[in-house]
Amino acid sequence: MTLNRREFAQLGALSLAAGFMRALPAQTPPAAAPRKTGYAVIGLGRIAAHFMPGAVNSTNSAITGLVSGHRDKAEKIAAQYGVPLASIYSYDNFDEIAHNPAIDAVYVALPNSMHAEFTIRAAKAGKHVLCEKPMATTVADSEAMIAACKAANVKLMIAYRCHFEPVHLRSIQLIHSGQLGQVQAISSCFGYNIAPGEWRLNKKLAGGGPLYDVGIYSLNACRYLTGEEPAALEAYASTIDHDSRFSEVEENTAWTMRFPSGIVASCATTYGANMSGYFKVYGSKGWLAIDPAFNYEGVHLHGELSGQALDELSPSHDPYQFQAEAEHFSHCVENNLEPQCPGEEGLRDMKYIAEIYRSAGIPVPWRMEPVSVVSGPPRTS
Amino acid sequence: MTLNRREFAQLGALSLAAGFMRALPAQTPPAAAPRKTGYAVIGLGRIAAHFMPGAVNSTNSAITGLVSGHRDKAEKIAAQYGVPLASIYSYDNFDEIAHNPAIDAVYVALPNSMHAEFTIRAAKAGKHVLCEKPMATTVADSEAMIAACKAANVKLMIAYRCHFEPVHLRSIQLIHSGQLGQVQAISSCFGYNIAPGEWRLNKKLAGGGPLYDVGIYSLNACRYLTGEEPAALEAYASTIDHDSRFSEVEENTAWTMRFPSGIVASCATTYGANMSGYFKVYGSKGWLAIDPAFNYEGVHLHGELSGQALDELSPSHDPYQFQAEAEHFSHCVENNLEPQCPGEEGLRDMKYIAEIYRSAGIPVPWRMEPVSVVSGPPRTS
Repeated sequence: MTLNRREFAQLGALSLAAGFMRALPAQTPPAAAPRKTGYAVIGLGRIAAHFMPGAVNSTNSAITGLVSGHRDKAEKIAAQYGVPLASIYSYDNFDEIAHNPAIDAVYVALPNSMHAEFTIRAAKAGKHVLCEKPMATTVADSEAMIAACKAANVKLMIAYRCHFEPVHLRSIQLIHSGQLGQVQAISSCFGYNIAPGEWRLNKKLAGGGPLYDVGIYSLNACRYLTGEEPAALEAYASTIDHDSRFSEVEENTAWTMRFPSGIVASCATTYGANMSGYFKVYGSKGWLAIDPAFNYEGVHLHGELSGQALDELSPSHDPYQFQAEAEHFSHCVENNLEPQCPGEEGLRDMKYIAEIYRSAGIPVPWRMEPVSVVSGPPRTS
Repeated sequence: MTLNRREFAQLGALSLAAGFMRALPAQTPPAAAPRKTGYAVIGLGRIAAHFMPGAVNSTNSAITGLVSGHRDKAEKIAAQYGVPLASIYSYDNFDEIAHNPAIDAVYVALPNSMHAEFTIRAAKAGKHVLCEKPMATTVADSEAMIAACKAANVKLMIAYRCHFEPVHLRSIQLIHSGQLGQVQAISSCFGYNIAPGEWRLNKKLAGGGPLYDVGIYSLNACRYLTGEEPAALEAYASTIDHDSRFSEVEENTAWTMRFPSGIVASCATTYGANMSGYFKVYGSKGWLAIDPAFNYEGVHLHGELSGQALDELSPSHDPYQFQAEAEHFSHCVENNLEPQCPGEEGLRDMKYIAEIYRSAGIPVPWRMEPVSVVSGPPRTS
């Protein structure tokens, strides 16, 4: 069974897990919407190549600026998206976006450690910020980003694209409506075999290993699936490094969480193996899994609820997830609403990541101060 | 792809993970084998109903005695298997098996807490012991069982049926031969929605919750898949108990392990949800999963190795796993060989179970003394 058009459209109006979709936009903007929210895209790498067509597909977003260290590359992309050459900026003259009225917001798609600097500079330039996950490399940076956006009275949203993926929303609906019964346990993994030389292997740029990059999907999913914050967690990390890629960041991390209701979760992430992202949620009346869960398309929900098979392929195709997140953030910008996943949502994950590192005994990454957001006991209810 | 007959037969001759199959029998016993090993089955419940036809299907095993608290039930089964009425025992007169030369061994299929008593009594009666998992409810009982069998010079094997399942052996072969590359991480879950009133909900009989009953499959699999013993582990347990089944044993357990090579594992078990048993093994050259993994039949191996799809349905049908374990143990008895999974193998799992309970902060179960078999640090390599 797949969602029909009406069901797909309805997903946008669902208000599911508490607080999860509090500002989800109507699927169609006001008929008279005069102007699209203009985005300057900072960092023209792989993820930006998904965001830009997504934003263009939306009803209320446009690409109106580009920020890159590679002028040639930026000019080609500018031609593709109709961005004036005058709206191409370098990292050095980036702050001049303050004077460009076509740019309402920035989309930060830089290596992790640069998120804080460019979010804060964008806020100071009076621009709203849609920042890729992970929010930053440190809790301190994340807090500084939130403070800067508040001080400048601009919106800050972290680009958790799965918050807009139809079958993820459907899973939350099934859980929240009680169709899964009492949830008992969750299992989730996500990892991949990283190519040598990627900036993600540089600790200063990445902050850490696969937990920052892909493990965060499992971590975040456990939170939105349960609607709870972890009460406690424990982790192990390891670096086997059979082919010398891992001189800076750890290769593997596995962690276990306990939520206040008693739900337990087991997760793992790796840069050393192809580990197709999935989650499985086990409830007293049935189970559901999304596998693959974190791809840009082809996301597949299946399971069994009260003896009935569940099998729904997401109707979304790349770049739908990016389209939906742009649509939502632009809607919030235009209507002065708090985004679905504001900076505080990203900060929570950063604190759990810090706690996982602390538990795994890894020296806290570059500029990361340990924070104790999760208490040790009680381990049992 | 499924195994052809030749490959299936060959599995029996594989010597894979170090120590895993050190005494696997030839698939055909010596042509002149004069006599089958006779088993008295102790406890005529669900698992015995799989073992008995399995033993009968083997070339070298027979059912020659029954031990039950229900004479009527025992007499019906005796008729079915050709067991003389004089070879039916109660729990009270059980020790008289010492004088029954048709009984070479016992198969202990009682509630967990009774394994120790009947293993020790069988040993004292001079009979070899094939005992269901979990070996016992406590480490102390497990050690006493091993000591009693050693003192009586009888064999003791724990009935880990998956050690004989063809696609489990195939997985070990794929890992051990390097076709999966460097293994980085394992994920495994197994649980089910337990019926009210089961003896497994009685802590004195069961020892504890789902970890004893089904989580042990994931625990044991992580060990035979890696060929390593966990260097450290951490766990959480919880009892949500939305329908009052869990006044004695915990409902959920999730745990994370780190192996000496750096492999990490994430596992979960529950009595509160149907959680089809599976494992996934992630290596640098590919991944493999068995899902379902721990069923009596229909066990399904799939994955991807160096870009090639892997898809093998186990050729075994219930009660093959029981047939194979009986065949192996009888072979060991007849030829004075150490069984594949001796008492010491069961004891290891009991120690890890104790460590998981300790980590989860659960008061150590009835008669279980905590043992520190796993050190805390190091958590990272």
